Amino acid sequence: MTTLSLVGIGSGNPDHLTRQALKTLEAADVILLPRKGGEKTELADLRRMIAAELLTTAPKIVEFDYPLRDADTPKYLDGVNTWHDALAAIWQDLITTHVPQGGHVALMVWGDPSLYDSTLRIADRLIARGIPLTVNVVPGITSLQMLTAAHAIPLNTLGDPVQITTGRKLREDGWPEGISTVAVMLDGNCSFQHLVPEDLHIWWGGYVGMDQQILIEGPLAEVCAKIIKARADARASIGWIMDIYLLRKST
Amino acid sequence: MTTLSLVGIGSGNPDHLTRQALKTLEAADVILLPRKGGEKTELADLRRMIAAELLTTAPKIVEFDYPLRDADTPKYLDGVNTWHDALAAIWQDLITTHVPQGGHVALMVWGDPSLYDSTLRIADRLIARGIPLTVNVVPGITSLQMLTAAHAIPLNTLGDPVQITTGRKLREDGWPEGISTVAVMLDGNCSFQHLVPEDLHIWWGGYVGMDQQILIEGPLAEVCAKIIKARADARASIGWIMDIYLLRKST
Ligand SMILES: C[S@@+](CC[C@H](N)C(=O)[O-])C[C@H]1O[C@@H](n2cnc3c(N)ncnc32)[C@H](O)[C@@H]1O
Ligand SMILES: C[S@@+](CC[C@H](N)C(=O)[O-])C[C@H]1O[C@@H](n2cnc3c(N)ncnc32)[C@H](O)[C@@H]1O
Repeated sequence: MTTLSLVGIGSGNPDHLTRQALKTLEAADVILLPRKGGEKTELADLRRMIAAELLTTAPKIVEFDYPLRDADTPKYLDGVNTWHDALAAIWQDLITTHVPQGGHVALMVWGDPSLYDSTLRIADRLIARGIPLTVNVVPGITSLQMLTAAHAIPLNTLGDPVQITTGRKLREDGWPEGISTVAVMLDGNCSFQHLVPEDLHIWWGGYVGMDQQILIEGPLAEVCAKIIKARADARASIGWIMDIYLLRKST
Repeated sequence: MTTLSLVGIGSGNPDHLTRQALKTLEAADVILLPRKGGEKTELADLRRMIAAELLTTAPKIVEFDYPLRDADTPKYLDGVNTWHDALAAIWQDLITTHVPQGGHVALMVWGDPSLYDSTLRIADRLIARGIPLTVNVVPGITSLQMLTAAHAIPLNTLGDPVQITTGRKLREDGWPEGISTVAVMLDGNCSFQHLVPEDLHIWWGGYVGMDQQILIEGPLAEVCAKIIKARADARASIGWIMDIYLLRKST
């Protein structure tokens, strides 16, 4: 039997690791370390640094290349599913190679494994293929928590619901009715610019929790252009960007 | 100048603490430790244990009593606001008494300070009263993250939005249109029982992340009564309960 630990490592700062994350990584026989190539090298470097400098044990580190996602597949979901299948095949191969008799394999997951992340779905595919696997999830600090912490704001207004969504859904569906707070992730297109800005306040963050962190907040009508420019400039100079934001209706 | 650190400590297990939370508590001059009385003693005990056993420094620990919230105030929000005012007065008093020349005061916050928590709102009241205060937020693992980790499920379905809400709002507003996943907190009444259960799956957790953790999941129609009973039984035997759940529409 193999245990697969999906360990949330937080959003870019080794200080986000929990005691539980450290203990779980330390207890692993093998840590799988994805190499995503290109712009994401800094993210693999953080994982390498965690494995090399923060653990008091020395699990075997196995680096592997991430397959590229086929952005050309006509339907978004098909592309994602094919990509998850490819990843499941790679994991299966790594597991049978490195813990052939069973053991404890760990994977460091950006932020928290529950939030817009595919590792749990890939693990489900392995189980569906009949691999005897126990999945163990260790929560980690999400980029959304880092955003609200950095701006020192609550996620919700008093007793009110919150919606977490993606840039794509915000563009497709517009502002959700009856909701005062919307948090947006996975937005490559500054989708907030298509909303009617009146009455909206935005708290935006790029590289939250990381050394390069950029924060901008204000009434959307006032800071919309500023964010678009800051994002484009940062992306051009650093080579990649991850950003996230929270929008709130004033009442 | 005083720095007030609101430090998320996670949802009941000292292993949820992040390196950043530990470092921040260790750097504090004073740690304010709320005593909530009655059923919540175990929660104060966790905070005491963290302060006494996990820190490598010895900040001054100041315990204080929480004012009772007036559940009889006719309007819910008025009751909450009066209670926040009372807490702000207590904090102000503690800060001027214990760091009269300024310093670093820390408060351990259950879960994450951004999620259905009042400490940021109370800190805002202190600032509004003219107290020179810098608020520093350290994120912590939320009960919602513990719930999804314990059940090893993703929060969202692929690329879809998620709504986080309260028991009260779920009862008042019903299932939010166009949403496949709803996470519910602050529900003293098993409000899921008022939903049309067909097509809904529930993942429920009591005392998530704690020694007493109870997990139940299944089609809502099948496990609804079981959860209500388990909750009542646990509450009767332990004396208090905190529970949280995620509901998902099958597609
Ligand atoms: C595939 S999702 C993974 C989210 C991750 N599991 C979490 O818990 O934050 C990637 C998205 O998360 C957000 N994100 C992750 N890390 C971030 C960071 N350090 N700063 C800003 N946004 C970040 C961005 O919206 C990005 O598009
Ligand atoms: C005032 S809110 C505080 C939430 C906290 N800030 C967090 O991040 O989880 C209290 C609610 O959180 C949930 N909760 C907190 N700790 C929990 C636990 N260990 N198990 C189950 N639910 C919990 C319950 O829904 C409870 O009614």
